[in-house]
This record gives sequence, structure tokens and C-alpha cells, in this order.
Amino acid sequence: MAHTLQRVSEDANKVATPDHPIHDLLALRWSPYRFSDRQISHADLLSLFEAARWAASSYNEQPWRFVVARHQDILEFHRMVSCLVDANRVWASQASALAIGIFRVTHARTGNRNPAAEHDLGAASASLTMEATSRGISVHQMIGIQPERAREVYSIPPEYAALTALALGYPGGNWMGDDELRLRDQKSRQRQPQTEFVFRGKWGQQAFPA
Amino acid sequence: MAHTLQRVSEDANKVATPDHPIHDLLALRWSPYRFSDRQISHADLLSLFEAARWAASSYNEQPWRFVVARHQDILEFHRMVSCLVDANRVWASQASALAIGIFRVTHARTGNRNPAAEHDLGAASASLTMEATSRGISVHQMIGIQPERAREVYSIPPEYAALTALALGYPGGNWMGDDELRLRDQKSRQRQPQTEFVFRGKWGQQAFPA
Repeated sequence: MAHTLQRVSEDANKVATPDHPIHDLLALRWSPYRFSDRQISHADLLSLFEAARWAASSYNEQPWRFVVARHQDILEFHRMVSCLVDANRVWASQASALAIGIFRVTHARTGNRNPAAEHDLGAASASLTMEATSRGISVHQMIGIQPERAREVYSIPPEYAALTALALGYPGGNWMGDDELRLRDQKSRQRQPQTEFVFRGKWGQQAFPA
Repeated sequence: MAHTLQRVSEDANKVATPDHPIHDLLALRWSPYRFSDRQISHADLLSLFEAARWAASSYNEQPWRFVVARHQDILEFHRMVSCLVDANRVWASQASALAIGIFRVTHARTGNRNPAAEHDLGAASASLTMEATSRGISVHQMIGIQPERAREVYSIPPEYAALTALALGYPGGNWMGDDELRLRDQKSRQRQPQTEFVFRGKWGQQAFPA
């Protein structure tokens, strides 16, 4: 199970600048707007979804579902591109594979709303992304999809809902997209400091004063 | 940034049995119902939340917030235990630290509902968990909390909502809890096969036939 961690980017601008040390698999992950024409192998795709499979979920419900389309399967790939919002279609068309992230809205056993469903899809997609990073593959997730078009195209049953898309591929490639995206792609990665989101005792109170 | 991957469990029963190879950090993660009395260091806690900080989020909104309580801060810790549902209070009391996972319901800029908010909290918590695994620390997330009690106790503003709790600690420890939990803790890890959740072309259609 040993993998060589390959840098997913040669661009130092895209490596996280953490205030405290974090694992390379987390620091090197980022969401590119372009991909090279190198295709992801069958074996790698299986391992990526296998990583999603072993994520944690509330009551082990495993509410995540994915529909996947490979670039090489041209008609299938274009059908999935048509489920994205316009702004995502051009750049995401460069990906080696696309997937729609779907969650089961209700608990299978009780039929009640599963309040953890979207959360657990997020965890599974993060696991998939971590596995991808370890294999030199980049993932760009997007909320900009047309969920009801995806429902129609893939016959998604009413107890499920499409939420995200994932663009998967190797870094590199030429620019496809407008200048605004190009600027966004070149920008260094920005995050709010821990003081803005980790509290202790009371809302807004710094957890770990220096 | 190099860390030694320590096995979070000596229990072979708790290592995932993937059908396709996945990274050790994902295969060794599991959610224990008991923890040893070894405490997580200040530096490790900072790195865990730093891992959450660098997760991906829709529009880089970073909707995740956490309130944390360390076991050693006895009053603070018991206040957080009181925000869990009854069934989680006994075993989670053994943790070295607890956190409440909170998301910002609306986009900060527009005030509209952020459909990715829970999803992105899930991604941040998965990143935190992966960092923990790399440091030999276990994380058990739970949906069984009392969100409105947490709102009251921590003065959580109306545009935010508590969703999860995270119990953090080192593996080991004695049994605290009932026999049903003990059985659940000893059970081997089960997951649906990829044929149940990865589709291609159409709902329910196997993505990668052998």
C-alpha cells in the first residue's frame, strides 16, 4: 500500500503556507482550473473510489453515490459536462474524468432525513481527494452543477440528490477559460487564521492563545 | 513536515479490507469508543485544526467553525459533554479533547443559503482526522449532539448551526459504556462494495466492470 507522494504542482504558489505543520498530502492539495491530457488509469480510478468507500459516516450509512464519466468515453463525458453550470463547462472539459457527487437524503432504514448526508459526502470526497494527491492526481470539486438536469440525465431516484461535481486529472495543460479564472488559478492560497474558526469556552474566544 | 505514521490500532480487525489499494492514512482510520488517558499535546491540537483550515471549500467560504474543550480543563470539558446526546456521554468522556463541528448556514457575502456548508464541514473534519491518523491520534465523529443546547452554551449566532461532535484521543483505555457499544467496537469494518455506489452512464449501472 506504499505510494510515492508526487508533487501535484510545480507551482510553489499553490503549496499551502500553514502556521503549524500539516501532512504533505494536505499541504500539496489544491484545485486547479486546468489539466494535462494524461489520462487516469483504470486501477487509479478504482483506488480513488475505494478511498471514498472507507470514509466515516453517521451510523455507517455511507450516503455517498457517484456517477463517473471518463474523458475517453466521449459521449458519456459530454453528457456529464452538460450537467455543469456554464461557467464550469470549458475548464472542466479538460479533465481526465468527471464525477457527480450525490447523497442519499433519507436514512435507508427509517426513511427520516439524514442530517449528516451532505457532511458525509464531503468526507468521502475529501478521502478520494487525498488518495488522488498521493498518486499525483488533482481534484477540483465544484458546487456549480445543475442538480435537476443530473437527476434527469442519470435517472437519480427521488430519495437521492446531486450536490457536487469533481474534475479529476493530472496537473498541466493549456489555458481553456477566461482571464478571471486564469488569475484565480495563479493566486496564492488564502485561508482565515485559526483565531477566526477555532474557539474555546465561548463563541469567538481564541482556543489556543500563544 | 515529515511525520511517522503510527498505527492507530493494534487491532487487525479494525484495519480496512479494501478491494483496491488505498493509502495507509485512510486504511488505518477508524472510530473507537474508548481512549487511553494519554493527552494530546498543544502542538498536535494546533496541527489538527490547521489541517481542517486547508481543506477545500465552495467559493473558499471556509464555512467550518469548531469549539474545542480539553479533558484537562475539567469544567469546560463537562460543559461540552452536556451538549452530546445521552448515548454518547459515557464513552466520549474518555476523550482527550472534544470539539463541536459547526457550519455557517449562509454565504458571508450574499446572505444566501450555502448549499455546500455541511459538505465542506465534512471535508474539513476529514482533513483533521487524516492529520490525526498520521500522528497516532484517533477521531470518533458523531451526529448525536443537542444542537440547540450547544447554541445556548456557546452563544452560537443564528447564521451558524452545530452539526457534529468530534472525540479525539489515543487508542486504548478501559471500557466505559454498555455491551452493545463493546460489540460495535469489536466488529470488523464493513462497507458496501463499489458496485453499490459508483455508477456510469445511468443510475445503478456498474462503472468499472471487471
